[in-house]
Amino acid sequence: MFQCQALLLSSSNCHGYSMLEFAKEEICNLLEKNNIENLLFVPYAQKNYDEYTKKIKEVIDSWGFSVSGLHTYAEPMEAINNAQAIFIGGGNTFMLLNTLYSYNLVSVIRERVLEGKLVYIGSSAGTNVATKSIHTTNDMPIIYPPSFEAIGLVPFNINPHYIDKSENETHKGETRDQRIGEYLEMPHAKSVLGLKEGSMLHVDGDSLVLKGVAGAVLFQKGGKKTEYFVGDNISFLLEE
Amino acid sequence: MFQCQALLLSSSNCHGYSMLEFAKEEICNLLEKNNIENLLFVPYAQKNYDEYTKKIKEVIDSWGFSVSGLHTYAEPMEAINNAQAIFIGGGNTFMLLNTLYSYNLVSVIRERVLEGKLVYIGSSAGTNVATKSIHTTNDMPIIYPPSFEAIGLVPFNINPHYIDKSENETHKGETRDQRIGEYLEMPHAKSVLGLKEGSMLHVDGDSLVLKGVAGAVLFQKGGKKTEYFVGDNISFLLEE
Repeated sequence: MFQCQALLLSSSNCHGYSMLEFAKEEICNLLEKNNIENLLFVPYAQKNYDEYTKKIKEVIDSWGFSVSGLHTYAEPMEAINNAQAIFIGGGNTFMLLNTLYSYNLVSVIRERVLEGKLVYIGSSAGTNVATKSIHTTNDMPIIYPPSFEAIGLVPFNINPHYIDKSENETHKGETRDQRIGEYLEMPHAKSVLGLKEGSMLHVDGDSLVLKGVAGAVLFQKGGKKTEYFVGDNISFLLEE
Repeated sequence: MFQCQALLLSSSNCHGYSMLEFAKEEICNLLEKNNIENLLFVPYAQKNYDEYTKKIKEVIDSWGFSVSGLHTYAEPMEAINNAQAIFIGGGNTFMLLNTLYSYNLVSVIRERVLEGKLVYIGSSAGTNVATKSIHTTNDMPIIYPPSFEAIGLVPFNINPHYIDKSENETHKGETRDQRIGEYLEMPHAKSVLGLKEGSMLHVDGDSLVLKGVAGAVLFQKGGKKTEYFVGDNISFLLEE
């Protein structure tokens, strides 16, 4: 855990910014600090790997790095083992986790990141799979993965795209807070950090700091709800 | 299939109506037509079985029927085998399906309903588990069920609480239509019927009719989207 270098974004898009713009400084700092020039992009959460990789490459290459898609390597595990940094993009969390399991990548990513050999950047679904489990994704369960347990870089759960509202005032579907509350009643549930769009978590060894342009809300068992703001140190969450 | 008698509600609550009020006439007609006085309520989608059963019992007993909770029977499977009608209420679809599997109830409910021995009423999560699979639930995956395959009274998928909007205009999370579209790209995907709140499906043997106070939208592979209205006969969906 103490070697882990990760940035976990709520989303790649944030109202008022072009794609990933709100996270540019943090991503650049993290890669430069670790002398990394090449970023391996994991497009498994979306259907069209080429198109998705191209979109991300256009943005991040323009910042002075070189992006390649994991799907262009014959041996995904070997590519992960040779990479210094990966970026797992958003889309459908169930499809993403299912594909990571199908190539046996979940544990190899976990080990390399925790050993400090691989820098991890994730966004949305890519953030969900970085946590203990995908129990708090917003996505539709379009495919049945072999497990909901995930990479586990952090010992709690994240709800990305967190928003404190129902779909509209007359709609009777559950609100986001109700859904998270249902999870917290499960015996296996961990604390849930709701990351608002524009926020991200910076994991730097045993330090966890909220970055970006928006805050987060921590949900804990027993109904406790605490708001955190950009710059807050929430390292205590790594000790759970 | 030809003996199946079922009512699949989008939700128990609908704006402008008290609980289940919009479905009162259909539920009463269905039970009376089959000379049924006792309704077995399945509260597994929520945490507090007693409280949930009491809420439903208050409403449906007042219509002249007698509601009992499945959780009050020592042998759930025996209770299902002795029942003439069940009502599976809403809540969390993953928890509901997981509990049905844990008591080995999925196939016994399927068999008895398809043989015409058990009338099925479901709402929200109780409608999701009545379909082929729970791939198009809106719920959070708070527990890992042994399968996403469900009771399978109808050969397609349903998205309950269907609403044709994103959470708000600046939010970057996927819209409901995008989520359903992601599912339809899966090789195993079936057509998805988005049931608006206030709508319900009446399965009567080989006839399928849209009832209630709101319509539905059918999503098919290839991006085809068709709107249906109260009273429409959509029996062709049973032939998939």
